[in-house]
Amino acid sequence: MADSVYENIRSSRVRGTAVYNPAGERLGAIDDLVIGKRDGMVKYAIMSFGGFLGMREEYYPVPWDMLSYDADKGGYVADLTKEKLTDSPRFNRGDEPNWTDPAFGRRIDDHYGSPPI
Amino acid sequence: MADSVYENIRSSRVRGTAVYNPAGERLGAIDDLVIGKRDGMVKYAIMSFGGFLGMREEYYPVPWDMLSYDADKGGYVADLTKEKLTDSPRFNRGDEPNWTDPAFGRRIDDHYGSPPI
Repeated sequence: MADSVYENIRSSRVRGTAVYNPAGERLGAIDDLVIGKRDGMVKYAIMSFGGFLGMREEYYPVPWDMLSYDADKGGYVADLTKEKLTDSPRFNRGDEPNWTDPAFGRRIDDHYGSPPI
Repeated sequence: MADSVYENIRSSRVRGTAVYNPAGERLGAIDDLVIGKRDGMVKYAIMSFGGFLGMREEYYPVPWDMLSYDADKGGYVADLTKEKLTDSPRFNRGDEPNWTDPAFGRRIDDHYGSPPI
């Protein structure tokens, strides 16, 4: 088994990890991960943009498979543009969606055209 | 796609979730999750036992597939006995293993007879 399956990290350490676009610009950071209670898959990275792209201080769950880890950058790279984030599912601090309700997860997957995992 | 694939939870909310044995006794709690940087799989739950089974205040990473979520209990169930935990990989607070080093993950999987995921 390749060593890469053992390239692991504590989930709490992922929080705060930077996310870059393919041009190398820092988009924001990961606020938290959303995982499947039963299947143990990381489904979404909740991103905060901190004002980049003119985004308000809201939280954007993005399908995990849109992010790829870049060891050189020490962060994740995602091909996210302002256009893709327009009208994307989001929430404000203190207005947490119900993650056990399928509706919100479906909205995220539909918006980004991601298969449910 | 079945609704259960959307039964999700924030990873930060998993921390502190109780773990029971099949007899319903509370073994301890999840301190953190260890995930694959690239594949987005939850690999291990780091458990603390809080003195149960006479265990010292150490951290025991347990393969995630040994835990099953029990909605009624609001926690996870794992068939862990004192025997299985004897000589199992563990670490003290402040003596964190290097999760990107394959050696520690291999030790955990070997100890519990879990396939690498």
